[in-house]
Amino acid sequence: MSAHAPLSSPIAHGGRLDAARRAYPNAPEPWIDLSTGINPTPYSLPVIAPEAWTRLPDEAAFASLEAAARAAYRAPRDCAIVAGAGAQAFIQLLPRVFPARRVGVLDFTYAEHGACWAANGAKVETVATIEELMGFDVAVVVNPNNPDGRIAFPCDLGPLAQEMTRKGGLLIIDESFMDFALDHSASPLASLEGVVVLRSFGKAYGLAGLRLGFALCAPARAAILRAALGPWAVSGPALAIGAQALADSRWRDAAAAACATEAARLDATLTLAGFELLGGTSLFRLFRHDKARDWFVRLCEKGVLVRAFPERPNWLRFGLPGSETAWMRLSAALEIG
Amino acid sequence: MSAHAPLSSPIAHGGRLDAARRAYPNAPEPWIDLSTGINPTPYSLPVIAPEAWTRLPDEAAFASLEAAARAAYRAPRDCAIVAGAGAQAFIQLLPRVFPARRVGVLDFTYAEHGACWAANGAKVETVATIEELMGFDVAVVVNPNNPDGRIAFPCDLGPLAQEMTRKGGLLIIDESFMDFALDHSASPLASLEGVVVLRSFGKAYGLAGLRLGFALCAPARAAILRAALGPWAVSGPALAIGAQALADSRWRDAAAAACATEAARLDATLTLAGFELLGGTSLFRLFRHDKARDWFVRLCEKGVLVRAFPERPNWLRFGLPGSETAWMRLSAALEIG
Repeated sequence: MSAHAPLSSPIAHGGRLDAARRAYPNAPEPWIDLSTGINPTPYSLPVIAPEAWTRLPDEAAFASLEAAARAAYRAPRDCAIVAGAGAQAFIQLLPRVFPARRVGVLDFTYAEHGACWAANGAKVETVATIEELMGFDVAVVVNPNNPDGRIAFPCDLGPLAQEMTRKGGLLIIDESFMDFALDHSASPLASLEGVVVLRSFGKAYGLAGLRLGFALCAPARAAILRAALGPWAVSGPALAIGAQALADSRWRDAAAAACATEAARLDATLTLAGFELLGGTSLFRLFRHDKARDWFVRLCEKGVLVRAFPERPNWLRFGLPGSETAWMRLSAALEIG
Repeated sequence: MSAHAPLSSPIAHGGRLDAARRAYPNAPEPWIDLSTGINPTPYSLPVIAPEAWTRLPDEAAFASLEAAARAAYRAPRDCAIVAGAGAQAFIQLLPRVFPARRVGVLDFTYAEHGACWAANGAKVETVATIEELMGFDVAVVVNPNNPDGRIAFPCDLGPLAQEMTRKGGLLIIDESFMDFALDHSASPLASLEGVVVLRSFGKAYGLAGLRLGFALCAPARAAILRAALGPWAVSGPALAIGAQALADSRWRDAAAAACATEAARLDATLTLAGFELLGGTSLFRLFRHDKARDWFVRLCEKGVLVRAFPERPNWLRFGLPGSETAWMRLSAALEIG
């Protein structure tokens, strides 16, 4: 048995090339995977000291990583930073350590939040506005939103953060796709008692296999998260690579510019093919098409995997091709090449 | 703030070289770390495919790893294998997903089990015999035991496993140090509904920084663990390295023999220095000495870190030196060189 989110699982995820290969065995290899929001041009792996592999990660390694994250994410001084094995690790953990009855999720979004709260017994509702989140015990805002890229501005989130702090509730702001839009980050709110801001390392840095993410929150809440994660919750290589990459602001600036250029090219390409742009971030773009389902199948048959949404049959999300080969394959599959 | 188990934390762990350096700033470098039970001769890192770093780990990677673990651990066909980021990840998780009121722990042992159950509201008692564990909701047996190496034989654990299965309880058998004593493994019991067997990859393979461990249990329980871990709970490099290393039975046999030889040399060396052998595994040895506290300090002053136990002031645990340089430093520090 296995429960690692096959294409048929209740929660579909991008990146399931193995399942796509099984479903479309005649598609040409190599597959072009545009089904994720992972930067196709990863941060170059630095030399990793042997001790990062052989020894248990020590306090100094966590401190270095968390200091680099603090600067990169512009976290306020009075907020704590907790490193974990991916933003998903925190999404799994939050409902267990801060149980709640009524959870509000803003908009159609990354499904794991609602699923994890529901799995822990919460009643989960999706709402359309930040104001509607006020009445819940826990509010979840994915920002920018995945898949449509909607930004909730810090000034709009402030009152909700204050209200959650006042009543002992929790506002979770999942900034997994915020790295290239830092000016919109709600990290200044992360020192409030009623707020947790989540960050993902692997998407913007193109190293999703590393499993690294962060929670930014008040120190008392951070202590609870750390205790629940236990010692050594991040691998030695992730600690070393993350510390170096997060300190490299020049790489981040260049990557942001490169991804923005690729994203604009994606908009032009898909528009030419008759798709309507709905939104996105510079790591993925969301399009609408009356025949989106047919396009999904046609692209798969040509070895191009994009992200479909069973609940939104007219939507397709495209990640960045990242290489001229991938661009050619995409254009050919779209029959505009 | 940080809670990554400093030397002063409620739970002391081995491997805290950074804290030792701060406490003994005049000790010669490099420190010789004998405070852990990690094989000092690690499995050689294979070439890691770029995709292991860049992509989200997929189902096929989990399946390969779990198949290799199934063979290496001689798991019965009807038991499931769940991979996680270290045995510790399961120790943190078990009390949250299988809550219980009364937990019995066999003997003085690895402290995280009791601490994690207590942190989740359980009443934890330490008992001296397997029979005494029968009356608890959850029983924890670390096997071989850390630090004294006591083996609980499968035939002795069988009735407890049956009783836990009968009454809906849970027997946790932590086999983190079983790799080089496989004939004693209780993995044949892992298909019983009331049993979870835990395995650690990093200790025997000398790759503790990788964060990889397993739970062997009945399929229904495995499904609950998988859901709680969420997708992508193991890093891409850990999946790739683990799958290759666990399939390499020749390396494991040679490593077992090498470690046994080192362990015997440790026994001879410490006995010569006036220590009394209490037990251990081929990855660490436990000794008694009336002046163990003084020896701990003297060894630290000479840059040799061993494992002390605040609750057992006359005990010291020594890991394997692993190199002639380390042996010379140890002998010199013991003043027998």
